[in-house]
Formats: sequence, C-alpha cells, structure tokens
Amino acid sequence: MPEYDVVVVGAGLAGLAAARDLTAAGKRIVVLEARDRVGGRTDHAVTRAGVLEMGGQWVGGSQTEVLALIEELGLETFPQYDEGQRVTVLQGSESHRLQEAPTISATGGAALAAVIDRLDQMASTVSLSSPWLTGEAEVWDSMTFESWLVADVEDDEALQYLRVLVPTIFSAETSELSLLHFLFYVKSAGSLGMLMGIRGGAQESRVLGGSHRISERMAEDLGDAVRLGVRVHTIRHDDSGVRVAYDGGEVTAEHVIVTLPPTLAGRLRYEPPLPAARDGLTQQVPMGSVIKVQVVYERPFWREAGLSGQAFSTQDPLAVVIDNTPPGTDHGVLLGFFEGAHARPLSEKSPAEREKLAVDCLVRYFGPQAAEPLEYVEKDWSADEYSRGCYGGRLGAGVWTQYGRALAAPVGRIHWAGAESAEVWNGYMDGAIRSGRRAAAEVLA
Amino acid sequence: MPEYDVVVVGAGLAGLAAARDLTAAGKRIVVLEARDRVGGRTDHAVTRAGVLEMGGQWVGGSQTEVLALIEELGLETFPQYDEGQRVTVLQGSESHRLQEAPTISATGGAALAAVIDRLDQMASTVSLSSPWLTGEAEVWDSMTFESWLVADVEDDEALQYLRVLVPTIFSAETSELSLLHFLFYVKSAGSLGMLMGIRGGAQESRVLGGSHRISERMAEDLGDAVRLGVRVHTIRHDDSGVRVAYDGGEVTAEHVIVTLPPTLAGRLRYEPPLPAARDGLTQQVPMGSVIKVQVVYERPFWREAGLSGQAFSTQDPLAVVIDNTPPGTDHGVLLGFFEGAHARPLSEKSPAEREKLAVDCLVRYFGPQAAEPLEYVEKDWSADEYSRGCYGGRLGAGVWTQYGRALAAPVGRIHWAGAESAEVWNGYMDGAIRSGRRAAAEVLA
Repeated sequence: MPEYDVVVVGAGLAGLAAARDLTAAGKRIVVLEARDRVGGRTDHAVTRAGVLEMGGQWVGGSQTEVLALIEELGLETFPQYDEGQRVTVLQGSESHRLQEAPTISATGGAALAAVIDRLDQMASTVSLSSPWLTGEAEVWDSMTFESWLVADVEDDEALQYLRVLVPTIFSAETSELSLLHFLFYVKSAGSLGMLMGIRGGAQESRVLGGSHRISERMAEDLGDAVRLGVRVHTIRHDDSGVRVAYDGGEVTAEHVIVTLPPTLAGRLRYEPPLPAARDGLTQQVPMGSVIKVQVVYERPFWREAGLSGQAFSTQDPLAVVIDNTPPGTDHGVLLGFFEGAHARPLSEKSPAEREKLAVDCLVRYFGPQAAEPLEYVEKDWSADEYSRGCYGGRLGAGVWTQYGRALAAPVGRIHWAGAESAEVWNGYMDGAIRSGRRAAAEVLA
Repeated sequence: MPEYDVVVVGAGLAGLAAARDLTAAGKRIVVLEARDRVGGRTDHAVTRAGVLEMGGQWVGGSQTEVLALIEELGLETFPQYDEGQRVTVLQGSESHRLQEAPTISATGGAALAAVIDRLDQMASTVSLSSPWLTGEAEVWDSMTFESWLVADVEDDEALQYLRVLVPTIFSAETSELSLLHFLFYVKSAGSLGMLMGIRGGAQESRVLGGSHRISERMAEDLGDAVRLGVRVHTIRHDDSGVRVAYDGGEVTAEHVIVTLPPTLAGRLRYEPPLPAARDGLTQQVPMGSVIKVQVVYERPFWREAGLSGQAFSTQDPLAVVIDNTPPGTDHGVLLGFFEGAHARPLSEKSPAEREKLAVDCLVRYFGPQAAEPLEYVEKDWSADEYSRGCYGGRLGAGVWTQYGRALAAPVGRIHWAGAESAEVWNGYMDGAIRSGRRAAAEVLA
C-alpha cells in the first residue's frame, strides 16, 4: 500500500496547481521540491524600491486560469505602467535617444504589420493539441523561423524588428526554433499581438507583492505536503505504483506528476528506462537564455520626461527595457533583459560587468540620469541549476514532427506537466497552471 | 592526496584510448563503466553465422588512428564485401528488384554528382577546430540542411537521394541538422564520398571477430583499472581535485575525463553546477535514432544472383542494406538499418513486428529467397539507457554558433571526450579514439 496517491515533483506553478486540485479531490499527495523555496521560474528580490519579480511576472490577456487563481488566493494585480513614449532603436538610427532618433518608418511599420497579420493567419491553422497534424506541419517544421524570415520578409526594418522580437519572446534566436514552433506558440497565446502587447496582452498586469506570491499562497494551503530541499533523482515505476527516490529517502505512490521542463525531466533516472520517444524528446527541448536585470533609481526620471521607460533596440545587448516600478515607492525601477545570443557570453562575465553594460544601455536610451543607479539586481536563469534557462524550452526544426507526441503523453504511471506541456499559453504562468490541472485530471480519470 | 591521477567515465573507445595513453605515461587511472561490458556504441551478437557487429563496425579511408590501434592490438581487418550490383529504389521505380527497376537516371546521377561536388567545396571552407569561425558560419547555421536542399537542388532524383542519404549518415532527417553541421561532418571525414564510400571510404573494412574487440583488447591491457557496472551519478570538482560518485561509492582524482556523449554527460550531476554554456550544449545535441537489424540466411543467395547485397531505397523503411557476412561461414548475412523517422515509430513495436518489416523489405530488394531467414538479431540504440541513440549526437540549426565552443573545452578539472568532440572523423570510431587521446594529452599538459 503506497504512502501517497500522488507524488508531485516540483513546486512551481504546475506542481502546486496539480497538488491543489488533487487535494481538493481528497487525494493524499506530497510535493517534492529541490529548491529551498517554491515558485520555480518565478522568484523575487527585495530592494530599496520594494519587492521585484526576478522571473515570470506578467499576467493578462486571455490568461483566465492564472487570473482566476490569483483572485481565489486573495491576491491582487495592478496594471503595467504604460504611459509616455517608447524608445525604438533600429540600425541606422543616428542616436539612441527618442528625442533625436527616428523610430520605425511608416513603410517599415506597414511591412511589419503585414508580416504579423500573415503569421497570425498561418498560426490560426496550427493544431494546438497535435501540432504535428497541422496541414503544413512537415514544411513548417523543416525550416527555422530565420529561414522563413529571410525568404518571406523583404522590408529590412521589419526583418530587423522581428529578429529582436523573437528573443524577447523565446530567449532564443530566430534560427533556434522551427517555423512550426513559432506558429504553435503564437496560436497558443491567441495571436502575435497578444504575445507582444501590454494592454490586453501578455504584459498587461503584475501581481501585488510579486508573482511568486501565487506559489507561496498555494503552498501555504498545502502545508506540510510541500517538502523543500528534496532533490529527486530516480523514479521507479511499474504496474503496481511508483517509488520516487531523493537524496536520503524515498516515497511511494500510485502516480507521479513530473513538472520539470523536458530537459531537466530527462536528467532524472527512470527504472525501467523511458521509451525512446520520450527520452529523445528530453534530449532536444533546450531552455532559453535570459539574464533579467533590474536597476533601481532615486526617481522614475523617464516618466517626468514623457517616456514610458520602454525601449526596444536592435543595436544594444539590453534589447528590451520596461518600467518595473512597484506601487508604493518614490523610487523608479527599469527592468531589462539580456536574451538569446546576448545572454550567452554575458553569463561568463561578472555581475559588475553586466551591471555596467546594462547601465550603459539605459544611458543611451534614457539619458545621463540613468548613469546613477541606487541598486542593481539580476538573475541569470541559465546558471540556475534547477531551471537551467528561462523563459522555457523551445522546439527547433524537426522536433515537433518527430518527437512532439511525447511532450505530454503519460508513460504508465508517470504524468508530465510544466509550462512546456501546455496547449494554451504554452510557456507562460497561465500555461504552467493549466498543465498542472490537466495532469491532475489525468490522474483522477 | 587523491587515489588516482585521472578518473575516466565510460569504457568505450574514447575512454579506453585515454586510459591507455595515461597509463603509458605512468599515471594512476581508473575507468568507471556503467554497463557490464566495455565498448560503448560497439557491441556484438553471436549468431549461427558467427559474431556480428551490432554497433559501429567499419573502418577505412583515412582513419589512421583506429587502423594503427587495431594493428597495435594484434587485431586484423577484412574488406567489406563489395561485388555485384546494387539495388537502388527511387520514387517512380515500378519494381523494387534490380533486374526490373531502373536505377537513378543519367540526368539524376549527374545532378547528384554536381551537388556532391558543391557540398564538398563548401565543406572545404569549414574550420574543424572552430566551426563557428567559418566564413559563412552564421548563414549556414541559421538554416536546416533540408532548407538548403529545397532551395539549391532542382533535380528531383538527386533531392530524393540526398534525403535518404542523410539518415544513413546521421540517423536523423535533413531538417534535424543545420547546413553548417552537415558541412562540418563532411570536412571532418574528408569528403562526402569518403562518408558514403566503401573502397577507400568509411565502410571499407571490418574487424575480424567484431569491432568490440578493439575495446576488449584495450581493457585486457588495462586490467583491474577498468571497473564495470559502476554507474557514475555525480562529479564534485574544485581547485584541489575531483570526487566522482557512483551508486555505492566514490573515487577521488586530480582530473576526470567524461567520455559520454553530450546529452548523457548532461545527465550527470556536477557540484558546483557547470557553466551555462556547457550545460546549454548538453541540452541540444540529441542522439540519432537507429535500429540495426541483421538477418542470417542459409546461404548468401544474392551473391549467386550477381548482387552485392547492397540496397538503397527512398521508398522502404529499411532504407539501407549491406552484406554483412563474416568470414568463415557458409551462411549469408544481410544488415539493414531503420534510421531517423523510420526508427522512431518502430521503437514502439515488438521485435517480431520489426523482423517482419525488415524481411518484407529484403524480399522486395532481393527476391523470395529472402523470406526464409535462419535467424534475426537487432539492436535499438535509442532504447539503450547508456547510449540513448546512435550513431551519435548532431547539432541542429543555431547550435554550433551559439554553443559549439563548449563541446570540447575543459571546465576546470573536467575534460570532455567522445566521438562528438572529435575534430577529425567526428562521430566515428576513429574520432572517438582521437578524442580520448586528445583529452589524455590535455591532462598530461
């Protein structure tokens, strides 16, 4: 007689949402988490400006699962600051400063809008439940998104823009994902505008106190069922149940839900070994590369200059910047991302070197006042042993059609959750929650 | 004071070659091997026709390292059987049988030769030591080999042929590797003809008694230094040395050489964790998919009909077949490969189903006599927990330029070997040996 009905591996949003549903259904569960905290790819830092989100942070658009959960847990959201003008730097801009630099031209803007329309139209034909069955799956999966761009986008400004937009969404370059994966991701979110957007889009709101509070609140409700500092290394499974071994112990259960992203799930040991299809999948869903940095200033000086604090540059390593000031402070906070090809070499540098580079970018975007930060905090997710990258795993050319079937299909009593296995809002907090609830429903069925 | 100068993880060709050089240099070494045998991706089966190779088996061409080692170990080679006609089945062939089916047309053959020349010429510009510094690296790594084929090969027969040729070399489809990786691999072997060829090429000769004998002979010389059934799970490393932990014990040393392919090396635990670049690499060098099957017949009946026993089909799952009869038997053996997209779904089937499918293909190629095998043996390398695929790891679009630097660069006292890390004959037995010797030289330097 096993100790538990279900063992959940990982106390991120997927694992905690699964545990919550299973507990509500009267199941005996335990959640094993390697870290000394819950929240997975959401985390926070306490700064002079208050609590800042160091991982996934935004909610909005059609993210009904996470929004409902936030309300259920008694948490609140507040709107992302989005007033004033945005700095856009393209190749050929004479200056980085908004006041002097031209933004995207009318022609470029129209070309970009047309490409986005076309991508949305293509994405609308993708099957979310079985992307490999999409009509054009074979062709769209045989090429990188970069190859499609080069062949199909003539306008140079639009091309530049999309090459920087992709890392802001995937933390990876246009060559590192297949056209099919790009389109799947767009469909999963609803539209490319939804992925890019603030009002009505994926960056609409933030959680008061930080997005990690969602996990913390769920963990509070689960009490002792959540065990921290427990690093699972082996899952033994057969017809009679599962045994999940960690450093120093083991638990038994009827089922296990593994919520780790595929690449980390592949690093567990399974006895008997997993089928080739599932194992092969875990060999080729690499995590994105992102270093998230936040710079605290005495005041949000950019707001006073009529700027939103948002920047988007094809010419600078800190390619995307946004105002991340939390409520209740007089200080101002700018959040920036080193992503994809920018993040990789910077992972080898010191925090001081990264801070200098980030501040240099902010000075170019917002002027000399940016040169005097009060505080700098950062998180290199690729260096984090228990995430090994963010925002999530991506599927390169060939992977959806050859291995996609194994992404969420249970292997006996082993069920898979995590943001990478979600059909809707794949890769987002909302998708993580959906995936956990789906895995819980599988177990209950 | 550590117990050993060097711990070697893995007793395949790379690990044993490293151990051999280190021992010759007077170093105290131990080789830890998870399996109950040496040889890694070389293995054998004993059949009514004698010993048959179930993994890597051919040597030849310019593979000077493996050829010298074979001689040094007192082993012998014999030529691959290569007389008679070859069956080639392309789309539109009315029959599969050589006597009835047209082979590639003169036009198709000329187009194919021209494409091969062009690829060889492009490959000649690739830097073997630093593929990411190749002049065209960014462009060639931004696209799949399939995208290049579609854009650059007009002749349909040549296109069909190349789409089947790629899985025979990489156990993966044309969309699963970047153009840069394809060209690197060609350069590493010398030329595409070298990769494809029998006489003077990579399939020139076989090892008497089986290729696994190379590893067995090296292990005999190393004696007790080779420990079988020892599954390493954790490598702790700092300025003072390394501690390599396995189920039930631990050894200490000055250095460790990890010979596992990147995807499996990534499944070990490292304390402290590896830098993002190396870890990221291990997330995205998936192993090829191949099920190697051998069918033993009463007699090599195809030879009597003037056929070589070789088949190449764009229309059948057992796309490549070759005569694998060992010396000293009256029986005949046909060897076939289910590769890439053919191998993946077949991994879920039973051996009996795979045997039926294989024999059906052989009947189509060689006639009704093929319907009566004496014996069938197979090896699904993707299902093997300690290889998780063959022939080797491949680099998809974007990986060489973003992560290639981490393929062989040591991390402190951890050195990397294995066929995937070789500059010359990457992916082959010869490359594995070279990589082991290179890692040994790093340690000695």
